[in-house]
Amino acid sequence: MKLMRVGAPGAEKPAILAADGTIRDLSAHVADIGGAAISPDGLAKIAAIDPASLPVLSAGERIGACVAGTGKFICIGLNYSDHAAETNATVPSEPIIFMKATSAICGPNDNVLIPRGSEKTDWEVELGVIIGKTAKYVSEDDALDYVAGYCTINDVSERAFQTERQGQWTKGKSCDTFGPIGPWLVTKDEIADPQALPMWLTVNGEKVQDGNSKTMVYGVKHLVSYLSQFMSLHPGDVISTGTPPGVGLGMKPPRFLKPGDVVELGIEGLGTQKQTFIADV
Amino acid sequence: MKLMRVGAPGAEKPAILAADGTIRDLSAHVADIGGAAISPDGLAKIAAIDPASLPVLSAGERIGACVAGTGKFICIGLNYSDHAAETNATVPSEPIIFMKATSAICGPNDNVLIPRGSEKTDWEVELGVIIGKTAKYVSEDDALDYVAGYCTINDVSERAFQTERQGQWTKGKSCDTFGPIGPWLVTKDEIADPQALPMWLTVNGEKVQDGNSKTMVYGVKHLVSYLSQFMSLHPGDVISTGTPPGVGLGMKPPRFLKPGDVVELGIEGLGTQKQTFIADV
Repeated sequence: MKLMRVGAPGAEKPAILAADGTIRDLSAHVADIGGAAISPDGLAKIAAIDPASLPVLSAGERIGACVAGTGKFICIGLNYSDHAAETNATVPSEPIIFMKATSAICGPNDNVLIPRGSEKTDWEVELGVIIGKTAKYVSEDDALDYVAGYCTINDVSERAFQTERQGQWTKGKSCDTFGPIGPWLVTKDEIADPQALPMWLTVNGEKVQDGNSKTMVYGVKHLVSYLSQFMSLHPGDVISTGTPPGVGLGMKPPRFLKPGDVVELGIEGLGTQKQTFIADV
Repeated sequence: MKLMRVGAPGAEKPAILAADGTIRDLSAHVADIGGAAISPDGLAKIAAIDPASLPVLSAGERIGACVAGTGKFICIGLNYSDHAAETNATVPSEPIIFMKATSAICGPNDNVLIPRGSEKTDWEVELGVIIGKTAKYVSEDDALDYVAGYCTINDVSERAFQTERQGQWTKGKSCDTFGPIGPWLVTKDEIADPQALPMWLTVNGEKVQDGNSKTMVYGVKHLVSYLSQFMSLHPGDVISTGTPPGVGLGMKPPRFLKPGDVVELGIEGLGTQKQTFIADV
């Protein structure tokens, strides 16, 4: 299933993308796409609904982030060997974890705000993993039992804030609108292998990232298990699993986003995003 | 006012500590201590209630974290010059920001779980700042307009997870129960100067931290203004402002917590906490 949330910011309705391409309203069945609705039982209940019985929503409505109630927006750093190389970093001996503020979450096609004083706003297409069931101390073998599905994420990053303004990367990762998530939560049954997903990103139509989750250093199963050793993962938590090569920071010379730039990105089977970057005034 | 939340985990009732020492039930007036209830208007409405008109709650009930709906649990690193020195770090040229997972939040007297594999669980008494109104690009002069109040926090930390397991400190800061908050949200009108608050922490009765917020490098006004340049702060967000000297990591030899250890801590005017540390099995 492709679950989504449509409507004005803060007033999104839960919805499903039907096989005929229509967006159908799930409001009568679930409060939102999150919490119990994305548990194994919750997803089974949604799967039992005939989409044809649901009201059609306008295809022109804004699309919100595909999951609600995200308590943690966890990111994995330097998780593609080629990306580590392009940023002059070494592949870490175990996953690097940092947090993006949940207040950065926005819809996949919303404008992205370039923060005041920013000169190094950058892009990162990433495979997102959405937790559906509380996970603590889970094994790699069991890890996918706790995953509701996958999504496309742009882990927008301000490199000066991230690395030149005193440490901890969260400072350059958490600006408002730096976390477009969606368009869909694609349930895991639709993704045969999360480690074989082509992904790409363009800036003003020019392809800059062209990767595949097969070159991830630490895969989805490992990450879910690993993270659950340090903290409980809860339904709605999102893990952004790192980016393949081709970010602006890695270019020679480095290239960063300016007001008016348009970024498009996508992951096979998970849908595409398109953002116009504008100055935050 | 001293606002609090009492009851079983996940089912806390909003309450107020009355001048006569009784805990009074605010459930008929606010849904919880958080969101709109801790906005300037919300707090004015609570202040207008006669506590004597409210039902008395048992003094024996569990105390929960003093604020609900925390979207961001932001911590400031190395924000006391003496603490930086004891951990062999230099005072940062601007605030270091990192995130604690909101899933780490617990009540002030709940047991704290020592995670599996932990050998370096440590303590940190910290002044907490609770946001009451959305803050973005606010000046230092206006910063306190966005603060609802203050609280006591133990920024429990696993030093090996934090610094020896590949970077970004969040890994050693986010374990379940590593964020006792409370007992009270003390509204800012009761705290004449947040930069003159004595604070202390004992382990098994022995005083190990004995500091004062007057030696903070970056004070509350600066921190609120500074953070708001990078991300919007929302009602219920918590800023933990750093710890004074006396953490286990800084001792010679270093000293860490074992199952059965009892930690007590407090900040003048903000109340005390008492936690028994137990193994997470």
